[in-house]
Amino acid sequence: MPPMETMVDLATPVSQSLAQVIDVFDAEIRSELLFVNRLTDQVRRYRGKLLRPNLLLLAGESSGRITHDHIVLAAVVEMVHMATLVHDDVLDEADVRRRNPTINRLIGNEGAVLLGDFLISHAYHLCSSLGSTWASRRVAAVTNIVCEGELLQIENRGNFNLTEAEYLDIIRRKTAALTGLCCELGAAVSKASVDAVEHLSAYGSDLGMAFQIVDDLLDLTGTESETGKSVGRDADRGKMTLPLIRFMERAAPSERKRLIDVLSSADPRKNGQIREMLADSDCTAQALEAARGFIASAIEHLTVLNDSNAKSKLIAAAEFVLHRRA
Amino acid sequence: MPPMETMVDLATPVSQSLAQVIDVFDAEIRSELLFVNRLTDQVRRYRGKLLRPNLLLLAGESSGRITHDHIVLAAVVEMVHMATLVHDDVLDEADVRRRNPTINRLIGNEGAVLLGDFLISHAYHLCSSLGSTWASRRVAAVTNIVCEGELLQIENRGNFNLTEAEYLDIIRRKTAALTGLCCELGAAVSKASVDAVEHLSAYGSDLGMAFQIVDDLLDLTGTESETGKSVGRDADRGKMTLPLIRFMERAAPSERKRLIDVLSSADPRKNGQIREMLADSDCTAQALEAARGFIASAIEHLTVLNDSNAKSKLIAAAEFVLHRRA
Repeated sequence: MPPMETMVDLATPVSQSLAQVIDVFDAEIRSELLFVNRLTDQVRRYRGKLLRPNLLLLAGESSGRITHDHIVLAAVVEMVHMATLVHDDVLDEADVRRRNPTINRLIGNEGAVLLGDFLISHAYHLCSSLGSTWASRRVAAVTNIVCEGELLQIENRGNFNLTEAEYLDIIRRKTAALTGLCCELGAAVSKASVDAVEHLSAYGSDLGMAFQIVDDLLDLTGTESETGKSVGRDADRGKMTLPLIRFMERAAPSERKRLIDVLSSADPRKNGQIREMLADSDCTAQALEAARGFIASAIEHLTVLNDSNAKSKLIAAAEFVLHRRA
Repeated sequence: MPPMETMVDLATPVSQSLAQVIDVFDAEIRSELLFVNRLTDQVRRYRGKLLRPNLLLLAGESSGRITHDHIVLAAVVEMVHMATLVHDDVLDEADVRRRNPTINRLIGNEGAVLLGDFLISHAYHLCSSLGSTWASRRVAAVTNIVCEGELLQIENRGNFNLTEAEYLDIIRRKTAALTGLCCELGAAVSKASVDAVEHLSAYGSDLGMAFQIVDDLLDLTGTESETGKSVGRDADRGKMTLPLIRFMERAAPSERKRLIDVLSSADPRKNGQIREMLADSDCTAQALEAARGFIASAIEHLTVLNDSNAKSKLIAAAEFVLHRRA
């Protein structure tokens, strides 16, 4: 089953709310300037599976009723995510995103920086339309962490001795913090108990960890036609991901040296060479196994919830992360 | 008198509050990551005249008493401003800022994009520590406008037919919106009347218009040693500013063509050639006159205030804008 359909299916209990999220999102970023609207039209094409709004709404639905605040916050987290995508593409010098040219490719890095700023500004504008500062404060606390994660990541470019603990710390900040927040916000707005909010937040965080490990795997082993975005960027940018870290830990000195040589080279066939080196090892399988561990932990956290359609969909969302190819 | 001293003098009625603003600013951006602190240490070196916190505090002082909310908001507007500086330097590919290497020069464009994001995220985090969402909503509404102004500006790069009205619209968004907000926030938090808040906001906006016109003039006519930052960037990036717009309006067709040729060229001596062309005209004097008009209007708006030390300093701040060389 193609991934998009899987997620539409996931969204069933909240599909009506999801349509409202899209309306709120679009209304918020509409500008009186035509030029700006042309740019944000492009951003809307990157809208994928709406994973983060789905998580927020399902967490909300599993603990109570979906309210207007859920809708607004689901649009906010998607806007934050879109902003990070646009800025990530500047950082990665990527050309393709969700089968469309990236913003930096279309209008240059400068436009992409500003468009990301525009999205993040609107995310806070929308978030502060709510009655209290609580959600704004939580969202900003998490974007602080996301920025630190991204900064740590570029600080560690070309650090071929990155440990697994350091890698996990980076992805916890740059990815899992936001998916954890989605579930926290959804549950908290539904007035779930403190314990339930904590478990749902941990579910979202574990899911985010698995999501990023798989994302990094797809960059290494996927193709552009399969994933709909530029691949092999991590190796190009000297970014160590889990299969490579596991390989470095276990390989003989001569093999480690060979991998570092390949990673340090500017050879355009670099990604293919890395795949070949890893082919004889079980390092990509190990990375997938690590993702599977996070998903098992995520699902375990859901035992705090009573059975419901939304809970089943949260379980399915977690399992989907392991099987996605895009 | 050097500009820094002028501003220290300006700050006298609020100098104690200003010290608190710096403490709040520094505490907010302190990270548990050493690497991040090294970067933000660098950002602190760009701290200049603290114009925006000064405006906010003086507007507050002129209408009532300075409270903790004023201090927090003054740190917020400075953080927003710093973020725009860091991202502007990415956009402008500038090398020097306040006599220090720019962040993009030090750690690359990617680090600069992320550090700007980090600052803006912390600005909203700090802003949402206040009791109500009102200030967050206003700050975000203004940063929406600032982003649009910056986007409009890059959209109009190389548009040598930019009109004066279009130029003024761009600088109103990218610069005057934030200085206007500073005065609005200061006055509103001091519970000034609606009328007084509007006049102070208009004062700040007019001051910002003049500030940007002078800033653009300094880029054209100043030197790096004088201004402490890279100059000649506007011409390099095909950005039309007021003296050039006035020149284009009045010049004979052959002179217009010559200016466009120079502006379109990649000649490193370009800025010198433009200065020479303008030397025989009074276009730079006209631009300064336009700035003077905005300052007169700004000061006129202050008639809403009773006489006070803070009011005198607001007048002095407006006059300072016309005489700054850095």
